[in-house]
Amino acid sequence: MTDDIELDKTLVDIAQRARAAGRKLAKASSGRKNEALQLMANSLRAETGMLLEGNQKDLERARKAGLSSAMIDRLTLTKGRIEAMAVGLEEIIKLPDPVGEVMKMWKRPNGLRIGKARVPIGVIGFIYESRPNVTVDAAGLCVKSGNAIILRGGSEAIESNSTIANVIAASLGRSGLPQDCVQLIRSTDRAAVGLMLTLDRYIDLIIPRGGKSLVKLVVDNSTIPVIMHYEGICHTYVDEFADLGMAETICMNAKVQRPGVCNAMETLLVHSRVAEEFLPGLWDSMTGAGVEIRGCDKTRKILPKAAAATEDDWRTEYLDLILSVKVVESIDEAIEHITEYGSAHSDAIVTENYGRAQKFLEEVDSSAVFVNASTRFNDGFEFGLGAEIGISTNRLHCRGPMGLEELTTTKYIVYGSGQIRQ
Amino acid sequence: MTDDIELDKTLVDIAQRARAAGRKLAKASSGRKNEALQLMANSLRAETGMLLEGNQKDLERARKAGLSSAMIDRLTLTKGRIEAMAVGLEEIIKLPDPVGEVMKMWKRPNGLRIGKARVPIGVIGFIYESRPNVTVDAAGLCVKSGNAIILRGGSEAIESNSTIANVIAASLGRSGLPQDCVQLIRSTDRAAVGLMLTLDRYIDLIIPRGGKSLVKLVVDNSTIPVIMHYEGICHTYVDEFADLGMAETICMNAKVQRPGVCNAMETLLVHSRVAEEFLPGLWDSMTGAGVEIRGCDKTRKILPKAAAATEDDWRTEYLDLILSVKVVESIDEAIEHITEYGSAHSDAIVTENYGRAQKFLEEVDSSAVFVNASTRFNDGFEFGLGAEIGISTNRLHCRGPMGLEELTTTKYIVYGSGQIRQ
Repeated sequence: MTDDIELDKTLVDIAQRARAAGRKLAKASSGRKNEALQLMANSLRAETGMLLEGNQKDLERARKAGLSSAMIDRLTLTKGRIEAMAVGLEEIIKLPDPVGEVMKMWKRPNGLRIGKARVPIGVIGFIYESRPNVTVDAAGLCVKSGNAIILRGGSEAIESNSTIANVIAASLGRSGLPQDCVQLIRSTDRAAVGLMLTLDRYIDLIIPRGGKSLVKLVVDNSTIPVIMHYEGICHTYVDEFADLGMAETICMNAKVQRPGVCNAMETLLVHSRVAEEFLPGLWDSMTGAGVEIRGCDKTRKILPKAAAATEDDWRTEYLDLILSVKVVESIDEAIEHITEYGSAHSDAIVTENYGRAQKFLEEVDSSAVFVNASTRFNDGFEFGLGAEIGISTNRLHCRGPMGLEELTTTKYIVYGSGQIRQ
Repeated sequence: MTDDIELDKTLVDIAQRARAAGRKLAKASSGRKNEALQLMANSLRAETGMLLEGNQKDLERARKAGLSSAMIDRLTLTKGRIEAMAVGLEEIIKLPDPVGEVMKMWKRPNGLRIGKARVPIGVIGFIYESRPNVTVDAAGLCVKSGNAIILRGGSEAIESNSTIANVIAASLGRSGLPQDCVQLIRSTDRAAVGLMLTLDRYIDLIIPRGGKSLVKLVVDNSTIPVIMHYEGICHTYVDEFADLGMAETICMNAKVQRPGVCNAMETLLVHSRVAEEFLPGLWDSMTGAGVEIRGCDKTRKILPKAAAATEDDWRTEYLDLILSVKVVESIDEAIEHITEYGSAHSDAIVTENYGRAQKFLEEVDSSAVFVNASTRFNDGFEFGLGAEIGISTNRLHCRGPMGLEELTTTKYIVYGSGQIRQ
């Protein structure tokens, strides 16, 4: 109990300081913010030794705890990875500052001039797992967009994140911005997340980035608005009018180029009129790349070696070299399947038919809908938005890649000359 | 317990039907939606007798329950008010359909064309109190923006709302759109609200519009994103460089033109250099209009008959003919007061000084910030956005008046020609 009260006090203190720092940061010039980002990048390079030392402690604990080699790899910092973090900050410097942009302005009949201006959201609580580079990306994006950030990383990376947070805070201090703009919760007590989610007086937005259970926990318990980065059950539909060579290239890219990410394809839908021509070649390419195929009955008539897909398969984000395949009789059946089983993340059609392409774009309601391109393109860099803090699966505020603009909100600014309301 | 299970089944059924109807509505043409709105307007006029009859039952119950005359007035339907509801729908017909608008589109170096298109949010849960005309406004805005809506009105208006919902559903049916696009929860069981807030599989957004306790209940219990219409503690700051005649006109309008609404002024801040000249005249005008003034110590030296303002006064949304007044020594003190005690709703400065005006616009972070105009202008109609479903005090998704555009979200549409990610 005493611990909880202590933790509560610590978190409220962090949140209050974030609120105060955020108000100062919101007024900072682009020049000042960019200077802070450059100092952060320089310090990461200069303190490489210290960062590797801190990381070493996490790695030792991870090995003792028997973490998988994949997890240990994600946790590992190297000189090269630290340099990449610094370069990432320098990329953010180059992006235009969204704060202060007046998106539109108009004049009313009574002479009022009304403008819609971008302002920072305020204080952002960021809850994430493992990779320490995410700490730097998130801090950099928030500083540039004028938001204070409270970081709550995974306990397995606590030493790495602490060292990084120290370096960032020192750089902020040297730049003349408040150190409290970027704060890390150093307690690894699980209760800290629950407490954080109730601090709606001081925190304006919670972004959880991690596994489904973490995201669900946050959504169910937060009194603060949440922008989720939930699952991606992404589809490619190969239409009867597809260029089948293009379809195979796109499917291979969507499945195997990086299977562990949210915009990778999980389910392939194929029109029955081209299934017999398309699937055998795809089988060779996919199995050649180590992909396991689980098909519907019609698929297995064409690919008898394929495993049988169950109802669960259509609802599963494998994040792995597994692909479920369904043969459909029409584009409507394909769209119905996507609507029923998909997660409205990234879905693609391959077709040379104009009407089919337009219908798919119109009727599939996902954060990004593609014609003749890989679902893997649903990404802030690929869309040309610059860096991203994640890909929103929310319908509110922003959908898809969340970059600097999406880290702002708006206010109306109104220039009058004595107008009153009648 | 049996009741709860029954209620639960009813609500899930309503929500599932809303989801299915919403999907069809999302694809409906502007013409079809406008036709439905016109049928709704015509039917309201044609069924005036039935509407008045339903309303009569609510009014009888209200009188027996001893509701205040103000509440009874808000509940009352008349021929004129029904005509106004029909005209409101016809105004919505005239507004441009936001759905399908491609807000921007660009081409990437790899040839991908990426567009950001407006789509409906989906299913909206609207929880509100008393006035039956809100039922029609909300239904009209949601139909036009392609969203299904589940209405949960106050129990005191249940008969009026039921009759209105029947008329709307019948009109939707005649237009060829699903009747389930607009559904009313007919149970007045308070548990219904709590259950509704957990149906995150079917409902995309909850909009509560009512008193603070209702809004707080919703925010604390909803697992669905909420856009609040919370309190407006609005300020007018009369700067030392104000045109004092203009300042008085603006203050009077902001306080007395309609004191019971969220964008009315609650606190006046006056620069000490003009307080002695400005306040006595304002006292006469305000008290002449029936306004009670509660002042800080400095105010009461100038206005000895004013009551003393307590700390609580600065944090109170009176929604009444009461005004708290504070004399400040600088614009910084004014901005600090607004930041500390305000609710970031609508705040105004009166000044002829360019630098002061710009500083106030820059540093006051409210949904609308005004120079030389009444805070009462923070309104969808006044801003030229057309009708509004409310004024958002959220920082996420939309801030300020929430009209048709704010009832949409976006999706990326991507036109490719075989691109894959490297």
